[in-house]
Amino acid sequence: MPESWVNLAERIGSDLYLELSGPGSRRAVLIRALRDAVREGLLAPGTRLPPYRSLAADLGLARNTVADAYAELVAEGWLTARQGSGTRVAEGAAPPTRARRPKPAPVRPTAHRYDLRQGAPEAASFPRTAWLAAARRALGAAPDEVFGPGDPRGRIELRRALTDYLTRVRGVRVDPDRIVVCSGFAHALRLLFDGSRGAGGGPLRGPFAVESYGLRFHCDILEASGVRTVPLDLDEQGALVEQLVEEPRVRGVLLTPAHQFPTGGPLHPARRAAVIDWARTHDGLVLEDDYDGEFRYDRVPVGAVQGLDPERVVYLGSVSKSLSPAVRLGWMVLPANLVEGVLAAKGTREASASVLDQLTLADFIASGQYDRHIRRMRQRYRHRRDRLVTVLAEQAPHITVTGVAAGLHAVLRLPPGTEASAVKAASWQGIALDGLAGFRHPRASMPAGDGLVIGYSTPAEHAYGAAVEALLRTLPPSTADSPASRP
Amino acid sequence: MPESWVNLAERIGSDLYLELSGPGSRRAVLIRALRDAVREGLLAPGTRLPPYRSLAADLGLARNTVADAYAELVAEGWLTARQGSGTRVAEGAAPPTRARRPKPAPVRPTAHRYDLRQGAPEAASFPRTAWLAAARRALGAAPDEVFGPGDPRGRIELRRALTDYLTRVRGVRVDPDRIVVCSGFAHALRLLFDGSRGAGGGPLRGPFAVESYGLRFHCDILEASGVRTVPLDLDEQGALVEQLVEEPRVRGVLLTPAHQFPTGGPLHPARRAAVIDWARTHDGLVLEDDYDGEFRYDRVPVGAVQGLDPERVVYLGSVSKSLSPAVRLGWMVLPANLVEGVLAAKGTREASASVLDQLTLADFIASGQYDRHIRRMRQRYRHRRDRLVTVLAEQAPHITVTGVAAGLHAVLRLPPGTEASAVKAASWQGIALDGLAGFRHPRASMPAGDGLVIGYSTPAEHAYGAAVEALLRTLPPSTADSPASRP
Repeated sequence: MPESWVNLAERIGSDLYLELSGPGSRRAVLIRALRDAVREGLLAPGTRLPPYRSLAADLGLARNTVADAYAELVAEGWLTARQGSGTRVAEGAAPPTRARRPKPAPVRPTAHRYDLRQGAPEAASFPRTAWLAAARRALGAAPDEVFGPGDPRGRIELRRALTDYLTRVRGVRVDPDRIVVCSGFAHALRLLFDGSRGAGGGPLRGPFAVESYGLRFHCDILEASGVRTVPLDLDEQGALVEQLVEEPRVRGVLLTPAHQFPTGGPLHPARRAAVIDWARTHDGLVLEDDYDGEFRYDRVPVGAVQGLDPERVVYLGSVSKSLSPAVRLGWMVLPANLVEGVLAAKGTREASASVLDQLTLADFIASGQYDRHIRRMRQRYRHRRDRLVTVLAEQAPHITVTGVAAGLHAVLRLPPGTEASAVKAASWQGIALDGLAGFRHPRASMPAGDGLVIGYSTPAEHAYGAAVEALLRTLPPSTADSPASRP
Repeated sequence: MPESWVNLAERIGSDLYLELSGPGSRRAVLIRALRDAVREGLLAPGTRLPPYRSLAADLGLARNTVADAYAELVAEGWLTARQGSGTRVAEGAAPPTRARRPKPAPVRPTAHRYDLRQGAPEAASFPRTAWLAAARRALGAAPDEVFGPGDPRGRIELRRALTDYLTRVRGVRVDPDRIVVCSGFAHALRLLFDGSRGAGGGPLRGPFAVESYGLRFHCDILEASGVRTVPLDLDEQGALVEQLVEEPRVRGVLLTPAHQFPTGGPLHPARRAAVIDWARTHDGLVLEDDYDGEFRYDRVPVGAVQGLDPERVVYLGSVSKSLSPAVRLGWMVLPANLVEGVLAAKGTREASASVLDQLTLADFIASGQYDRHIRRMRQRYRHRRDRLVTVLAEQAPHITVTGVAAGLHAVLRLPPGTEASAVKAASWQGIALDGLAGFRHPRASMPAGDGLVIGYSTPAEHAYGAAVEALLRTLPPSTADSPASRP
């Protein structure tokens, strides 16, 4: 191809430079050039192209090359060829109106200096090397069939590893047939509730009780599936499960027994027993959201409620707090009578979770790396929590930290009426954090308290000290110090 | 701990051996032993346990160890402690009725010798080494933020790589803001249609036209979302898109333009233009399922219809045929006005696709490995198709193979009325395959033809020859050969 720019002016009656360069065969280059010219409106709809013989001569190409290119573009719909009327630019090939750029998706903005929002482990701590080593071992050992259509329950290797792990660490009563792997907690809730999925539909129907404080998107998923949510009051001993009997139509309850989210207390033993008792006598179901069960700093974590009665409790967990939400792996441990319904809702076509990651996680757990990583992170988060508590005790003793020493977040109780301004002050200081109000159920009737939910796991290790210092500067003064109370 | 088995008979009035062995501290071992005993019903509800001092003496353990173990089991709900009544096994802790094993999930059984079902690439051909190398590069280069909460559109690295790839190979008009990564085709359909997802719900409402032959689960997903499906007739030039104007309420159409599934022809250029024209004049939408667009053996594949009008076509693709369904990655290229609705349906909490796999695939594409793998597989599948066609021409000339030389499957046309018995005969010979009937829309009105859908990509390379031989033995004889037509 002698020229990389060829002017078609003589042939089509107007200036048109075709850029005949770039990778690929001559035919491919010509097709691309003509297609681009049509796309960009340089060749208007209806324009008659030169006969392939003349274009071939102009461009110094073989006739077949140009004929092939025309045929290809006709097949794609850019050109039309009609006996007697030659080859023309198709009418349908006009350039579209300039595409409107969509608004950026509502992801976490990065315009703040310190991120103290709850929900994510320290991103920098992901064990890249150990994970890759596990991936290499897992992919090397995997039989070919892993690359074919999969079991909708998830890979058996992962379900076996989880069986051992959850029995040992969380006291869950489980066998691999009861586990369904999913892509995280939201996916699990959809499989349990969403009636529009597949022919079977989600197996659960409402209403369902929830804790008066929790993650709003849990309720959103239930309500979107037509399941009404009924808030239970909370006190220092967790959810008041005795309120369940006051709601005769409630079919089940979603709880965070190990570490109430976000207020931070474990469910009292008497209430653990009471909720199982309620489930047995009322044919109810308990959904146990064990979102951070491995992270307890003052003692061995309390085991899962599921262990008390595996036929009445769905146990739900994921690696989103322990490893990273980027892995997109979670699991349900199901009562026997729910397995088929959940698999029907999942469908054989939507395996959802990456099989490669499933195999890697199975190896990561079985090889002890998962325990090792959690131990390391437990120590790190514990130091962060201790530091927060110590600094507050020294410099802001009027602010109390509620809940047990556990998890990836803490709740700072604030003087009444100060939460909204504290959140605003933090935002001005470049700190992203949430107030308690955003976690309150819209129909909750218990008294609201003011507080901040501080995710101490989110900042990078080197940035944590500065983040706590910045936070301190935004906290409301004690009423004794406040200008209003001084003479 | 002097004994690994300790009999509590004297203390609780019946024989009970606690197995005090296994890993962990003495406290952990004792907790596990007591918990197991309660679980298995060896310690009945209400049984009073010996005071911790006496048990400590019996077991040769420190008193604190036993007291801690009791406290832990009380906290977990296995035991109850009441002033004056001592420590007892909790009433709620009775063993559950023996769990019913769920029926195994409906995955592909392996009871057949040859699998000639369509839908999956050759499992053994997954490029493990190259994939791992890409994973290593991708994970090494990734910034820490990839392990935090992600963009619901998918990683920008992957959307950029797909932009280049789809423009170059499939003639798609795309920029990264228009791509939403998902976990496969089923997930994409749910995001587009499922109104129960999130507050926004799926953006599309029906009715929708579909091809009279196709994958039944596509229609199932639409119908489950309340979208009525209307079948279009098919001929050798693809779907009769002119029938769209006869259905005034139809909002869109789902097509397989590059290679009609399963019958195998490409959509005729005039119909490509006509469907775009229909969409423009009727405010309609075209869903382009480009499920095997890279696999054309006789010529360069026809580009995507989407290139004709990106504001009227949703382009859908995945790696399920090109790499493996185990990777669980697919993508949508959306018209500008659908991006927000799809992201609202997806929600920020259900990123779904593994970020690690997304980064790996981005590297795999950008480094040229994806093209290389597809070239290799194209050659292999082409040989398989050629072999099937040749063997049939030689040994069963009354059986014709329809469609163009493309894809991972072929349709064998059978004499009228022979399909059901041919499928049954194949099953007796240990061959898994599907007849055309299973792909027919229940309300299709076009004449049904008999045929077999042969997935020639599924068997392992070494098993393919034998599979074709076995298939030949099950095909119906030509009417000239059949016993009935002989005297």
